[in-house]
Amino acid sequence: MARDDEFDLIRWIQKQSPVRPPVELGIGDDCAILGASAIGRSMLVTTDMLVEGRHFLLEAAGPELVGRKALAVNLSDIAAMAGRPTAAFISVALPRSRGRELAEGLYRGLLPLAERFGVTIAGGDTNSWDGPLVINVTLMGESGVGGPVRRSGAGPGDILFVTGPLGGSLGGRHLTFEPRVDLALQLKARFKVLAMMDVSDGLSSDLRHMAEACGAGAVIEADRIPIHDDVDSGLTLAERVDHALSDGEDFELLFAVSPAEAAQLERPDSGFSVHRIGRLATGEGVSLERGGEIFPLPVGGWVHRLE
Amino acid sequence: MARDDEFDLIRWIQKQSPVRPPVELGIGDDCAILGASAIGRSMLVTTDMLVEGRHFLLEAAGPELVGRKALAVNLSDIAAMAGRPTAAFISVALPRSRGRELAEGLYRGLLPLAERFGVTIAGGDTNSWDGPLVINVTLMGESGVGGPVRRSGAGPGDILFVTGPLGGSLGGRHLTFEPRVDLALQLKARFKVLAMMDVSDGLSSDLRHMAEACGAGAVIEADRIPIHDDVDSGLTLAERVDHALSDGEDFELLFAVSPAEAAQLERPDSGFSVHRIGRLATGEGVSLERGGEIFPLPVGGWVHRLE
Repeated sequence: MARDDEFDLIRWIQKQSPVRPPVELGIGDDCAILGASAIGRSMLVTTDMLVEGRHFLLEAAGPELVGRKALAVNLSDIAAMAGRPTAAFISVALPRSRGRELAEGLYRGLLPLAERFGVTIAGGDTNSWDGPLVINVTLMGESGVGGPVRRSGAGPGDILFVTGPLGGSLGGRHLTFEPRVDLALQLKARFKVLAMMDVSDGLSSDLRHMAEACGAGAVIEADRIPIHDDVDSGLTLAERVDHALSDGEDFELLFAVSPAEAAQLERPDSGFSVHRIGRLATGEGVSLERGGEIFPLPVGGWVHRLE
Repeated sequence: MARDDEFDLIRWIQKQSPVRPPVELGIGDDCAILGASAIGRSMLVTTDMLVEGRHFLLEAAGPELVGRKALAVNLSDIAAMAGRPTAAFISVALPRSRGRELAEGLYRGLLPLAERFGVTIAGGDTNSWDGPLVINVTLMGESGVGGPVRRSGAGPGDILFVTGPLGGSLGGRHLTFEPRVDLALQLKARFKVLAMMDVSDGLSSDLRHMAEACGAGAVIEADRIPIHDDVDSGLTLAERVDHALSDGEDFELLFAVSPAEAAQLERPDSGFSVHRIGRLATGEGVSLERGGEIFPLPVGGWVHRLE
């Protein structure tokens, strides 16, 4: 794409997305301007880069779902701190031969999601090159009342939940998942959420990071892990649990509340259908509890331990 | 690079850069947190992606200068609105075979610049893949007293300046240029800067955008264009002027002030050595004035017009 075609593309992008507060000035100057008045509390910022061949297969997914995913993974990070997303900045490196077509496809995929979550596309950078497709999104958000929920605020005895079933995402759900923005805001409005993060690398790995941040260990009750229907039902139970623990790209939320709040949250009339999976404990690392036995979950695979 | 090596790299990056206000929480959670109190006025956000083969040749430049450039081009955008940079978010796609080495090189190049301009590395995303090197930086800043300087605030009769000589940057200066952050703040503290932008695509192209944003035309006085020593002195004057107008990646600032302020700014005792290059005028487009003659500068090349 020649430089003039890029300007033309930028004008096209500009027309696709209305400018909403706190954005005062979006695409078209050297920087975007976000108003201070609307920023109010703390501002959240997250960024994720998706590269062809690792996070998506362009021919199989198509550019729309790639654009959607690029925004959705960032929305999931804002959700993980119980924030409300506001403004996105989108950089792309487009394969030269079909740059304009790919760019429009990416935006057709991400714009409806931006619209639905009230996100202004406030800036970006457009490049064409001879390499594969790369898209980077930086997303900003505002924290709600009481400030953002970090991953470090819980401790031994607190109860762990996930917001949905896990595993098998790479079969396609990693492109179409629903970021848990609204659910996180609702949870935080009703309960004291002590620690939260999104499940992107896989429950076992992400929980290890949360436990470490909390200065605690974690125990997962194997029988409580919600296994997604996307996991092959022909596998053994142990293999299916392994997928739920390790596949990653689930983009559900992992969070901790006190035992008293957990009991409230699990009441049938709480209005929430989340899954209790275990607890934080003294010590360190992640352990798996099954049939009364507890054994440490190694960082690598572990499926043989359940066979 | 395996996922664990990436976590190791992220911890290394975390140790390289201290967290300063307004950043409250940097690398290590789902989002960074920027404090509202310190945000004060408007917040500026800009993003730029550099891709191997287009913005740099990795073997020739080395990763340090690539990292430096990736931050510097964003600092230049903050300078262009007379802002003060605060926090950077850095995403990289690293060629798998030498990911760690390249990542450390990039950071060795950009960290001293971050330190010098008071920028916290507050987050990012690290990926390895089989493609070439890609680095995306999103940089945030605060606007100074009186708010950001847009590119649209001047009109016919206002005087145009650039902050330094132009042309020949691609010989190497595009990797080592000094972002004009402090100069922009000093200019704005002393003068009413009506419109400003940085020269990245080349003076003729960038001035066209500024004039359009101002709803005006622009006249450049050919004999006033400061030509950088990096432009081959063996060329004809017309060719050298063409380089100064068209090469791009100068990262000097282009700005407009009123005629009265221009006279103050040009006084030998003003403390500023900036270059008056022309004026905004009624009409549209960019024209070149030479020997009393004015002719429109076409969007493409024009060197034959001066021969």
